[in-house]
Amino acid sequence: MIAQTGTTITIAALARETKLASRVLAAAGTAEKDRALRLMAAGLRRRREFLRERNAVDLDRARENGLSAAMIDRLTLSEAVIEAMAAGLEEVAGFADPVGEVVRMWRRPNGLMVGRQRIPLGVIGMIYEARPNVTADAAGLCLKAGNGVILRGGSEAIESNRAVAAVLRDALAETTIPAAVIQVIPHTDRQAITEMVQLEDDIDLIIPRGGEGLIRFVVEHSRIPVIKHYKGVCHVFVDDSADPEMARRIVINAKAQRPGVCNALETLLVHAAVAADFLPAMAADLAAAGVAVRGCEQSRAVVPDFEPATDEDWAAEYLDLVLAVRVVPDLDAAVEHIQTWGSNHTEAIVTGDYHRSQEFLRRVNSSVVMVNASTRFSDGGQMGLGAEIGISTTKLHAYGPMGLEGLTTTKYIIYGDGHIRP
Amino acid sequence: MIAQTGTTITIAALARETKLASRVLAAAGTAEKDRALRLMAAGLRRRREFLRERNAVDLDRARENGLSAAMIDRLTLSEAVIEAMAAGLEEVAGFADPVGEVVRMWRRPNGLMVGRQRIPLGVIGMIYEARPNVTADAAGLCLKAGNGVILRGGSEAIESNRAVAAVLRDALAETTIPAAVIQVIPHTDRQAITEMVQLEDDIDLIIPRGGEGLIRFVVEHSRIPVIKHYKGVCHVFVDDSADPEMARRIVINAKAQRPGVCNALETLLVHAAVAADFLPAMAADLAAAGVAVRGCEQSRAVVPDFEPATDEDWAAEYLDLVLAVRVVPDLDAAVEHIQTWGSNHTEAIVTGDYHRSQEFLRRVNSSVVMVNASTRFSDGGQMGLGAEIGISTTKLHAYGPMGLEGLTTTKYIIYGDGHIRP
Repeated sequence: MIAQTGTTITIAALARETKLASRVLAAAGTAEKDRALRLMAAGLRRRREFLRERNAVDLDRARENGLSAAMIDRLTLSEAVIEAMAAGLEEVAGFADPVGEVVRMWRRPNGLMVGRQRIPLGVIGMIYEARPNVTADAAGLCLKAGNGVILRGGSEAIESNRAVAAVLRDALAETTIPAAVIQVIPHTDRQAITEMVQLEDDIDLIIPRGGEGLIRFVVEHSRIPVIKHYKGVCHVFVDDSADPEMARRIVINAKAQRPGVCNALETLLVHAAVAADFLPAMAADLAAAGVAVRGCEQSRAVVPDFEPATDEDWAAEYLDLVLAVRVVPDLDAAVEHIQTWGSNHTEAIVTGDYHRSQEFLRRVNSSVVMVNASTRFSDGGQMGLGAEIGISTTKLHAYGPMGLEGLTTTKYIIYGDGHIRP
Repeated sequence: MIAQTGTTITIAALARETKLASRVLAAAGTAEKDRALRLMAAGLRRRREFLRERNAVDLDRARENGLSAAMIDRLTLSEAVIEAMAAGLEEVAGFADPVGEVVRMWRRPNGLMVGRQRIPLGVIGMIYEARPNVTADAAGLCLKAGNGVILRGGSEAIESNRAVAAVLRDALAETTIPAAVIQVIPHTDRQAITEMVQLEDDIDLIIPRGGEGLIRFVVEHSRIPVIKHYKGVCHVFVDDSADPEMARRIVINAKAQRPGVCNALETLLVHAAVAADFLPAMAADLAAAGVAVRGCEQSRAVVPDFEPATDEDWAAEYLDLVLAVRVVPDLDAAVEHIQTWGSNHTEAIVTGDYHRSQEFLRRVNSSVVMVNASTRFSDGGQMGLGAEIGISTTKLHAYGPMGLEGLTTTKYIIYGDGHIRP
């Protein structure tokens, strides 16, 4: 795929090659990009034996290294996972192409027409861990938005990632899009990341997906803009005007429907005026769902079974069947708690009061703010953005779930008629 | 203004204070922000003697240090400059408030209403060099967009910057907006920049304005997103269907109307089919405007007076009455030259051909792409974006001139009715 003589030269050369190829892709029409995506899907289905063979090499190594059953499960390219990758590419082919849209155009007093038009970002650098299906998902979304992609997956999945990329690149041979728009970095050491994130001339955006340690490492070293979220400490505030049954349903769904993901609920805030009424029934629901609770003093006065919470609990992203509970005197205190301890990911209020709903929406500036809905809806697919390539709690460029539109930017276009500046 | 015990603690503490104050500002209404801007303008006018006294300290030091007349001119807070700062703040008060706008809202099949609403970025870190008027301009734009601002100006202007900020902060005492939303870092060493750009929890965006060395230093050290442009190597391509008089007028305007700015023309590309006709008259116009030309071999075959150009000239941002000229065989070659040597700033085609105009607009993805207009129009004010706080050739977030809208981001807002995820 690339020359193996000296890491520095090869990653820089690979990025340059991707940049040059990305210019051809940027000019490609929607029909050609969609045809490529469908060929890529067909390739994955046709060559699934090859994919499973290469995946078996990773799986053997994983077992030798004593990886957990959960890790091995995430690493496995089963028939179902391969089919899901192929179906995902076909789904992306069906999405609207964001490239070329003129977002707005206006006339200046001197007659100049000025507009903003959506264009690809250029080259995206994806840095991710175990799951090899990310290779196909990210490549598909980047291609649809007209971007080259450089994929740097983890060492556990390197054979699988290279195999998936090889199949996708081979499919491009039947199109006018150069295979070099999809690249896998074969080096899996951290030094490869350090080198990659210096290449600001040839890579336009870095998207790291993985643990907080990996993401902090990338941010610390990168000269290239990074779209990231460190963690999701999501809140639900149950107002004193909330329908208590709706509130309990939303809390259980937000916490327990899938506790291991970033949009799961971590801290429940309850208005003091309803704490005594609400918390016992809520506690019973949580216990029934297997959720352990760490509560503030006031909540423990109502439900003594709650373990005592410390400041660490307000900052915690448990990603597990554990919930922090705090009683707050009013909406002000709820907002302040969220601003102090939150991660700018997703917050919801449950309320029947119009004014409170508006005040919560206005004052909380997390990336997704909800009224009377489960935090689990904070997801590109659920919100109608199409597939999601990442989620950002950095306010620049794409704040919140990031779909195809987030993989583009806008340039200004100007139509003149010989205009010169006085 | 801030405690002086240990630089690290104080810059971090100052940033924290700004972040907390920025939350009050983010919730402030448009009327209150506009009132604050008018009070700030009145304060600058009323206290111009104080400003001139503090400015004199900087000017004395500048003369002792033998700064150039041009530098001293940029440093001077004359009556006219103070009036311009005040008028600028009043102008910003008249602009539409970007905050709160719901950009789009849609209904999901399950009835959830999902929308995007414009919110302030939070806290902006401005890093700039000599001109003290930037202090007022940046503070005004950041305030209007609901952001706190931390200003780190150069050592030459430190007394002036602090005086301007003090006047602006005093004006805020008559409002509900905390003075702490406008801060000047008193430390003018590079170490202060290094510390500032690590504070990713409290600063949301860094905007450096100054020489390429300063900007590269900031990018290298920052963990916070940076909006920047290193340089503006702008191109005009004169197509063979161009009206030659229009082309000459645009080239002279783009090069000579104000050569020291980033949207000035640096390289002229001429279609080979018209080079022999076009270049002699163009050369005469350029000579009359005092512009020295470095030309490619083909151009020198037509106008032997041109100095020979080297590859360095294609990459040069002269910021002076110097122009590089290259004859290219066709539009393809012009696009390739721009992609190879350009800086993604601003490019224009002069053409009478419809198809070429569209192809140029489609294929060139610089931040501003024009047909039949001078590159000097690449400016937030000229393009109708209101005042300009910076210009970006980084594709993320704000590509091209950045006005008030670029100082905001969008959050997602969701209206539910007890929705839980199945």
